[in-house]
Amino acid sequence: MHLPKSVIIKEVGPRDGLQNEKAFIPTENKIEWINKLSETGLSHIEITSFVPPKWIPQLADSFEVAQGIERAEGISYSALVPNVKGLDRALDAGVDEVAVFMSASEGHNKNNINKTIDETFPLLNDVVKKGLTANKRVRGYVSTVFGCPYDGEVSIKDVIRVVDSLLEMGVYEISLGDTIGVANPLQVEEVLTELFKRFDKSHFAMHFHNTRGLALANVVASLQMGVTVFDSALGGLGGCPYAKGASGNLATDDLVYMLHSMGIQTNIDEQKLYEAAKYVESKIGRNLTSHQMLANN
Amino acid sequence: MHLPKSVIIKEVGPRDGLQNEKAFIPTENKIEWINKLSETGLSHIEITSFVPPKWIPQLADSFEVAQGIERAEGISYSALVPNVKGLDRALDAGVDEVAVFMSASEGHNKNNINKTIDETFPLLNDVVKKGLTANKRVRGYVSTVFGCPYDGEVSIKDVIRVVDSLLEMGVYEISLGDTIGVANPLQVEEVLTELFKRFDKSHFAMHFHNTRGLALANVVASLQMGVTVFDSALGGLGGCPYAKGASGNLATDDLVYMLHSMGIQTNIDEQKLYEAAKYVESKIGRNLTSHQMLANN
Repeated sequence: MHLPKSVIIKEVGPRDGLQNEKAFIPTENKIEWINKLSETGLSHIEITSFVPPKWIPQLADSFEVAQGIERAEGISYSALVPNVKGLDRALDAGVDEVAVFMSASEGHNKNNINKTIDETFPLLNDVVKKGLTANKRVRGYVSTVFGCPYDGEVSIKDVIRVVDSLLEMGVYEISLGDTIGVANPLQVEEVLTELFKRFDKSHFAMHFHNTRGLALANVVASLQMGVTVFDSALGGLGGCPYAKGASGNLATDDLVYMLHSMGIQTNIDEQKLYEAAKYVESKIGRNLTSHQMLANN
Repeated sequence: MHLPKSVIIKEVGPRDGLQNEKAFIPTENKIEWINKLSETGLSHIEITSFVPPKWIPQLADSFEVAQGIERAEGISYSALVPNVKGLDRALDAGVDEVAVFMSASEGHNKNNINKTIDETFPLLNDVVKKGLTANKRVRGYVSTVFGCPYDGEVSIKDVIRVVDSLLEMGVYEISLGDTIGVANPLQVEEVLTELFKRFDKSHFAMHFHNTRGLALANVVASLQMGVTVFDSALGGLGGCPYAKGASGNLATDDLVYMLHSMGIQTNIDEQKLYEAAKYVESKIGRNLTSHQMLANN
């Protein structure tokens, strides 16, 4: 088994993990949560999303969160931005980098951002260009790469088209999202094989959801393909709007446990992760469902 | 990714899944549960264990269960037996095959069956020989192959020694158990590589627990090594006596979902599995924690 020596984990809990939480976490708790994440050894934390508050009320305090956190040396604090207006607010709030997003499938893109894929390209192009002009790195999320809740199967051609456009705009990395958690290891290998024929593998990160329990198996398939960047959310926060009760994002603590057990370095302290997760549990008022938290609690 | 075309799943829920349940499931419910499993397409169901009732009170009705179930064509109904006395009861109850068990590590073997490994060999030899004489197939479980709750790391030499002895006795298959759920995919590859240098791979089944969430990733590593037989428990029943609150056995429904999604045949009907799992939930009085049940409930 050919595995990389080290992996970069991008924590998305404060953003992707909160989108499906019912309760509003008070701003000061979000800030403390992120501060605790900053102590774990993570090098990249997605702290919030500058979407209109009516889209995601749980993240209505994005500006205050971005301004309130302590900035630790060597950590990139990023935020999701849907458009130029969101980008401007993110820049005002002083984030280190921004991320744009769209879907590989028409159905999900329309439902998620109310535009066709062709209508989305020029919109994101404006955001990426303005972000780059402001000397920020811009990341691109592609949703529904492995399946769509509206369209079903997603063709590799559709994925390639979106990836190609985003790289052309100037994003430095593309996070391939298994939005509804339907990817399997064989499919991961097939999709990455096709993408790596056309694009350098250093451009890609994987963003798995654990809806069907396959997230870690998909990580191993990705590692074997040479991917070294993974998104995850501490404790497995996130859920799935299309399958109530289902597991959420790939859990950072489960990912770190597996990587370390295989001798792959992450620079992350498992005990510090556990402490941060205990803090999150105390604020969301329920136990987190990652395997590490179930086993350690 | 080199994967087999089909896989045999051996359901161990009525035995391994119940060992850690607090409540006693009434005999008639166990029988109905197994009858429902018989409708799913499974070809092998481990229905109980003929250990002394004081060891595992939850399985004190093993004889009645074995006698009470409907026997479906083409399904092998097996039972765990610790010694010749247990074997005799299992034979009286009319099981199709039996399974013996021991650990690869001294610490677990002593704690689990109160004997050293060297003391265990002649004991199991008597059971295997008598089982074979009765024209029953005999399977061998080896516990703590990937780590021991008492001894920590387990050397491949210790695993080989136990495997060698069991095959020598005449067991047709050895189920390699990750008793405390600490295996990782790289380790699975390493252990199987060593074993397959000495023994034919057709002798081996894998028995993963999902304590740390790695069971499915370990299955994929095993599939890539050519293993085609896996133990699992519907709904992920089982828990872990060494980590309270942790996930239990690899869930049959999660395993079937993953295999089918990769085009690997199991002959198992996912809807029938779901119906059997709903029955189990109604009798244990709580929701099962497999990802399929969380997503579908």
